[in-house]
Amino acid sequence: MVNLVALILIVSTTLFSLGEARTRHYKWEVKYELKSPDCYKKPTITINGRSPGPTIEAQQGDTVVVELKNSLVTENVAIHWHGIRQIGTPWFDGTEGVTQCPIIAGDTFIYRFDVDRPGTYLYHAHYGMQRESGLYGFIRVSLPNGVLEPYSYDYDRSILLTDWYHKSAAEHTAGLTSDSFVWVGEPQSILLHGRGRFNCSGIASEQCNQTSTECSSPHTLIVVPGKTYRLRIGSLTSLAALSFEIEGHNMTVVETDGHNVEPFVVQNLFIYSGETYSVLVTANQDPSRNYWTNVKVVSRNSSTPNGLGIFNYYPNHPRKQPPTIPSTGPAWDDVAPRLAQSRAIKARQGYIHTPPPLTDRLIVMLNTQNKVNNFVRWSVNNVSFNLPHTPYLISLKHNMLHVFDQTPPPNGYDFKTYDIFNQSENKNATTSNSIYRLNFNTTVDIVLQNANTMNFNNSETHPWHLHGHDFWVIGYGTGKFDMFKDPANYNLVDPIMKNTVPVHPYGWTALRFRADNPGVWAFHCHIESHFLMGMGVVFEEGIEQVGELPNSIMGCGDSKRFLKP
Amino acid sequence: MVNLVALILIVSTTLFSLGEARTRHYKWEVKYELKSPDCYKKPTITINGRSPGPTIEAQQGDTVVVELKNSLVTENVAIHWHGIRQIGTPWFDGTEGVTQCPIIAGDTFIYRFDVDRPGTYLYHAHYGMQRESGLYGFIRVSLPNGVLEPYSYDYDRSILLTDWYHKSAAEHTAGLTSDSFVWVGEPQSILLHGRGRFNCSGIASEQCNQTSTECSSPHTLIVVPGKTYRLRIGSLTSLAALSFEIEGHNMTVVETDGHNVEPFVVQNLFIYSGETYSVLVTANQDPSRNYWTNVKVVSRNSSTPNGLGIFNYYPNHPRKQPPTIPSTGPAWDDVAPRLAQSRAIKARQGYIHTPPPLTDRLIVMLNTQNKVNNFVRWSVNNVSFNLPHTPYLISLKHNMLHVFDQTPPPNGYDFKTYDIFNQSENKNATTSNSIYRLNFNTTVDIVLQNANTMNFNNSETHPWHLHGHDFWVIGYGTGKFDMFKDPANYNLVDPIMKNTVPVHPYGWTALRFRADNPGVWAFHCHIESHFLMGMGVVFEEGIEQVGELPNSIMGCGDSKRFLKP
Repeated sequence: MVNLVALILIVSTTLFSLGEARTRHYKWEVKYELKSPDCYKKPTITINGRSPGPTIEAQQGDTVVVELKNSLVTENVAIHWHGIRQIGTPWFDGTEGVTQCPIIAGDTFIYRFDVDRPGTYLYHAHYGMQRESGLYGFIRVSLPNGVLEPYSYDYDRSILLTDWYHKSAAEHTAGLTSDSFVWVGEPQSILLHGRGRFNCSGIASEQCNQTSTECSSPHTLIVVPGKTYRLRIGSLTSLAALSFEIEGHNMTVVETDGHNVEPFVVQNLFIYSGETYSVLVTANQDPSRNYWTNVKVVSRNSSTPNGLGIFNYYPNHPRKQPPTIPSTGPAWDDVAPRLAQSRAIKARQGYIHTPPPLTDRLIVMLNTQNKVNNFVRWSVNNVSFNLPHTPYLISLKHNMLHVFDQTPPPNGYDFKTYDIFNQSENKNATTSNSIYRLNFNTTVDIVLQNANTMNFNNSETHPWHLHGHDFWVIGYGTGKFDMFKDPANYNLVDPIMKNTVPVHPYGWTALRFRADNPGVWAFHCHIESHFLMGMGVVFEEGIEQVGELPNSIMGCGDSKRFLKP
Repeated sequence: MVNLVALILIVSTTLFSLGEARTRHYKWEVKYELKSPDCYKKPTITINGRSPGPTIEAQQGDTVVVELKNSLVTENVAIHWHGIRQIGTPWFDGTEGVTQCPIIAGDTFIYRFDVDRPGTYLYHAHYGMQRESGLYGFIRVSLPNGVLEPYSYDYDRSILLTDWYHKSAAEHTAGLTSDSFVWVGEPQSILLHGRGRFNCSGIASEQCNQTSTECSSPHTLIVVPGKTYRLRIGSLTSLAALSFEIEGHNMTVVETDGHNVEPFVVQNLFIYSGETYSVLVTANQDPSRNYWTNVKVVSRNSSTPNGLGIFNYYPNHPRKQPPTIPSTGPAWDDVAPRLAQSRAIKARQGYIHTPPPLTDRLIVMLNTQNKVNNFVRWSVNNVSFNLPHTPYLISLKHNMLHVFDQTPPPNGYDFKTYDIFNQSENKNATTSNSIYRLNFNTTVDIVLQNANTMNFNNSETHPWHLHGHDFWVIGYGTGKFDMFKDPANYNLVDPIMKNTVPVHPYGWTALRFRADNPGVWAFHCHIESHFLMGMGVVFEEGIEQVGELPNSIMGCGDSKRFLKP
């Protein structure tokens, strides 16, 4: 019924469209349902019964309205529109603790925002660890009528990559936040747009059933021989960095995070949580057989088996097994090709946004694992982040400065003595909810500096995501960033703009952005458990230019007082 | 630290007591922690790290203040003070959807209420199915200084009985409320004050570990030979009706639900979810050995093994196994002794509250299992109850009559044709959130009429709990209640007053109460899944006499508008 209403609304807005900006209205019910995406039955957060949820389809300049009914019974919720800058609507960024109070169980909340740029974006829960329970989907924004992408294709397809745990987010959260620290461990499966396949042997069939219709057939991408596909690939893994490949097929990278990429060809695409890519794939191989789509965890020595799907040449049967053994994929610990791919991504000629030549402020962010009061945490410059209970946007706008720590967080770390290549006990880390306040309309450089974790000979990959902005990716390096020498090698000519970028093991990544979007914006590692463990910061800019906050984001902590009849 | 503060507060209030009414201040943090009460590790809702939570100790006339910090991360919470009538404070009854909005994750809420009668009471979560996750404990209210109970004992002990599932409340709730209906099934363990023992064989030791200190020793009650113990027994099972026995020892029942019982002796005590009993037990058996405390599920053909503890004669070692094989306990399907116990419970001579001789209103409540839109539900007179999102207390006080169905629910069922002894498809059931509005200061009779479920030859036991009142238990019968004949046999001489009472299979139970407590009060089956499936009603009485509602209960649904700065 809800679906039908939504469908009618979409169809009616489409019928009456004459090319002008439209409102795309979605009516969603968010609910736990028992789902078996990889054959193992688990309470899964669904939207209108589905995980991944429905794809939001809009055109550049449209207004998207999502009327969200929270039917989670005892849990609140918040949804972040990942890659949408929320210009003029910072209160609808969907980040619990930063831009809004959570949507109380039973309540209905209306998100309303403009999609001002074409491209491939994501949405997902941004509250506790609800994302890993299945609350996510795509946002696809098309070009204005009559405007074409600078590349051509016959069909447009999407595939969302996620990892899947059998334990609940509540259990993971309890493990990470209670006295007896328990790490979440490796996911049990990789899901290709909600489809995986776990080996159920030894588990009761009522719990894990490989003949369930939900998992008995793998993810299938049907292609017509000779045709070219724009394949939009997004990753919303909770932990895993991935390599994606289609057996025997080259992929040409043409878009990432809503920006056109100077095309380059890959056999396997490395993709980190929070990133999107469009690749072009031509069905130009032997059409008498099918091929594997193959998704492998990289950067961790993971026990998670590869996620496998079928690249199905029509009219072969979609379940016809490819005659080959799936490739094992790239070595998990080979950083070089991942760094090479990162460096290969440049803005497409003709679509270059030139960055400002100079920066007003540099913040170096040392990424470390720490112990704080016997809890394992992640930190930036030895400060491990905690969200306050009253959202920053509300407390800053209403000048309630008592609700969070007013001491500015550090702009750097002890560059001279800190050894990024060795284990550090990092005993001096602290937790804080303090934030960076940026001068409005200034240019800010961030250098993410990776380091060894608390384990011997181990440095992880962290995908950092910035809310409310795209940034220029102006440099990647290995070892310790040198603020006096390395900026000379920045790419200020044709850097790609993105909203999510990896920092590679023992390396650094340099970003530049303009603090030109009034609001309060999270910037954090997109690994869900890492953010919960403190790996994030918050930026405020132009708070005085933020308009009147809507009533609907209020209701928690000290914001109750601002609710108006 | 929190515990210490609470302790200091308690000690200080105790030290300065001169017998006058005091305020008992508790500071609680509610949080998920990984606990293994029966050796199986599971996220458990704890209070200050414990489940069961701390016992509230107060004296008649005291004010109890519980400052509750909700640290459940994404879940809200509400706590009901079970057996406390909340005279003058109906907004602190703790019933989500009836008397308050849930306490939002991260928020702190202050409950403040008077304990006006001595006796043994309970507290527990009253929101979704959170109770089964471990959020519960005792309230013990002592007599005024110098006043003695009409029975004597040497020591006062408490034991809370619960049943324990290995799946999460979220999974159970999803099963009961989503399209693919899944029943919760039988609990894995019975816990004796938070201690059980599951057979871990075949389960990975990180998940289930019988050498864990949490479960490696059973529940122990240490007794000194020759001494008499007041044993307060409470049940907050989510599903199970129980038989409790102490091997070789008689128990004299002296209190139930805060009322003195004309003493009678039992070998095993039947106890239903939501009930409390005080029994006197004298350690008068062979002191050279220990004895079993033995808790068995009755009324269901359950797969749950008996819960076992040690009745430990000092100075035997507490873990010294009794030399006997634990009794199997009473037959699960023998209703006669359970009905006999119910009938044996009368008010103690000298402590009789005589009920009004006549009633102003009779409501007969047929208890049936039904199917509504392919969901299995429970109903009263073919109406299956749903909670509204805006609590009744707020909507009624502020005359927001649009938030729930204004059609009064039925006062009875089709007595002439309904066959309580046979399966019924009950296809005509509906769901509703309508309520019974009672005339203030009138006398109301309720007859709970049991029936066959949707399964052949099956009628279950339902413990019904009334908020805000004690009621007189004026009759039990078998078969179909006849409103013209059966009232002649009511016990209006010495009926016990209770807040929770069972309706036995194929039988009926008659209650009388005075609608004299201004507020809105739930009356429901205390089996947690049954209430979620619709087995409850709500009474309003004297709403116009309810004082100004506190701000703190507002914030959900249509009550947001009443929040004041």
